[in-house]
Amino acid sequence: MYFDYAAATPLDRRVLSAMQPYFTELFYNPSAPYAPAIEVRRDYTAAKSTIAQAIGAKPDELIMTAGATESINLAFESATGHSVVTAIEHHAVLAAASRRAHTIVPVNEKGQVSPDDIRAAITDDTTIVSVALANNELGTIQPIRDIAEAVKQARTERLARGNHTPLYLHSDASQGVGQLDVSVSRLGVDLLTLNAAKMYGPKQVGLLWASSHVRLSPQIVGGGQERGLRSGTENVAGVIGFAKAIELVVTHRKHETQRLSKLRDALEARLSEAFPEAVLSGHRKHRLASHLHISFPGLDAERILFALESRGVYVATGSACAANKGTRSHVLGAIGMADEVADGSLRLTLGHLNDDASVVAAADIIIEEVRREAERVQP
Amino acid sequence: MYFDYAAATPLDRRVLSAMQPYFTELFYNPSAPYAPAIEVRRDYTAAKSTIAQAIGAKPDELIMTAGATESINLAFESATGHSVVTAIEHHAVLAAASRRAHTIVPVNEKGQVSPDDIRAAITDDTTIVSVALANNELGTIQPIRDIAEAVKQARTERLARGNHTPLYLHSDASQGVGQLDVSVSRLGVDLLTLNAAKMYGPKQVGLLWASSHVRLSPQIVGGGQERGLRSGTENVAGVIGFAKAIELVVTHRKHETQRLSKLRDALEARLSEAFPEAVLSGHRKHRLASHLHISFPGLDAERILFALESRGVYVATGSACAANKGTRSHVLGAIGMADEVADGSLRLTLGHLNDDASVVAAADIIIEEVRREAERVQP
Repeated sequence: MYFDYAAATPLDRRVLSAMQPYFTELFYNPSAPYAPAIEVRRDYTAAKSTIAQAIGAKPDELIMTAGATESINLAFESATGHSVVTAIEHHAVLAAASRRAHTIVPVNEKGQVSPDDIRAAITDDTTIVSVALANNELGTIQPIRDIAEAVKQARTERLARGNHTPLYLHSDASQGVGQLDVSVSRLGVDLLTLNAAKMYGPKQVGLLWASSHVRLSPQIVGGGQERGLRSGTENVAGVIGFAKAIELVVTHRKHETQRLSKLRDALEARLSEAFPEAVLSGHRKHRLASHLHISFPGLDAERILFALESRGVYVATGSACAANKGTRSHVLGAIGMADEVADGSLRLTLGHLNDDASVVAAADIIIEEVRREAERVQP
Repeated sequence: MYFDYAAATPLDRRVLSAMQPYFTELFYNPSAPYAPAIEVRRDYTAAKSTIAQAIGAKPDELIMTAGATESINLAFESATGHSVVTAIEHHAVLAAASRRAHTIVPVNEKGQVSPDDIRAAITDDTTIVSVALANNELGTIQPIRDIAEAVKQARTERLARGNHTPLYLHSDASQGVGQLDVSVSRLGVDLLTLNAAKMYGPKQVGLLWASSHVRLSPQIVGGGQERGLRSGTENVAGVIGFAKAIELVVTHRKHETQRLSKLRDALEARLSEAFPEAVLSGHRKHRLASHLHISFPGLDAERILFALESRGVYVATGSACAANKGTRSHVLGAIGMADEVADGSLRLTLGHLNDDASVVAAADIIIEEVRREAERVQP
């Protein structure tokens, strides 16, 4: 009973099958000049086309990377002026932003940022605005199109004043691609990060999409792969797996989103009924179907987590990032959650292997263990 | 009949078997707090220990990366002063060096650099010297221990003059680990790059080893993985595969080196006998057992390559890097090879799947095709 799909997803068996030949018989260096290597290059290029198609982009606008963190760093490396980010961005965005002048824009209690606040934070020196499509802890979906509009306005106004400093909107859509439309043109972004590991693909495979007008600067230089923007022998098997993974999640997006939504709502209803005092966080409507964030004020979520673990139910208390260990979630702080509520927070994120039976069983176990912990605290 | 092991190696089936569970049942995020994820973290840490042991290092001195190119960039990011490199370094080293002040030290006609020349190139501002253990085109092995001695002298002299600028010796040992002792203490280096993809491990998995006195600066920031020096969810399957791969090559190193050496010498003898005018490059003695670099002056190596390809023999004309396409090898230029010799150069690199029969068969085909090409040029 795994409820931590936001932290890691198992490889879809079809993804693994697609990758396997590229580890063994098709192991060739895609830059080598003989026929079987050229075939590998062709397959690699075709995989990039599949991925590009899934987000309505052109294949040569994709820079394949070793995951979302690298993509984010590359985006920030290419826009070295002032940056604007939200208070609930992923650690990679906050860390990349903090290397230079930046403004952190607050979010409301549901975890949404206001496009007006973004607009107000943009200065004459701002080169990048970075807002994740959906928050990995709360599941809250940001109004990216409206933010894109605000950025566009700022850009137009600056241009009218003769300021030609580039201004890009970057979004990390890693958490959303299985449930949301991530067509780059509809989102209105200039830069987009995706991560195969969040969609039943391999770990350490990601991409940065950059609109053709964006001037990128490479962070990793060398053999000139990925149009000179990210050198290193291509991760052929990984990119083939990424393509298969995104093809699968996009094909099944509608059905899977409805299915997860139903499961999540059932789980939420059971837990809310058992614990009327529990606090549900994240936007009620603009939220990923996979996400349920629930807090039990006054209880110790870590103790509950370990009790659940011993019964085979795996959940998270915060985002599963190394830097997060032993510290309170910056996301919960940013939505104004009191410490004693935050400390009793569980994040349950659903995915492929969850079904009605596992949700019912898990809900029963969670209810038992939360009650046990509540009785321990207040007998 | 694959003779391009320096460009890419197939995954050893034992490596793939070791990796497989970490794609599926053991897919957990190693930073997650529940038992199965902690088990994954333990396996990841154990894999790093295995790798560390293979090079006589401590596990917490390893920073896992997405391959040699990233490792090299990280090494240079941590030493932002003047750099000293040889003229035959890999593109990644040359590109990283060229971002700042640097000196390119020549090599002799065998591809070896003189430690005295390295010593002479070190200025008061030099922070990094980078010399690959073995050249990927010629197979020539550098006198790294003597270079380490020269760097140590320079450091001592600078210190005596009150100059406390750090000075590190970095070596990319990606090409050598299956055949040479790469114990970091015996080599005397401060930084070492390795690449799993060159030793029958997965592509885009590498490491930078840094001695405990080296102060590293992260290039990719975020969740704080790899002691904050390289963020991003760990490539668990990849690192497990790397450990298995290095364990296997180190275990079989002696036997495999002798085997390859015999095969290579047989191939070299047959080709030299058939073409007494052919030029053999690389150091006769200090050379990787896998490497044979042979030039047919006046002939077009690319035409030979395609003729060989059509008969199932895969060889290289230069190093298989994207940036190298359509240009002459900078390595051959650096050893003073005339263009008309360089243009007729083949690189044959041997590995696991080559045996007596395949070498004899390939030699016969190469002889036929080189003769055919020679007759075309001069009927």
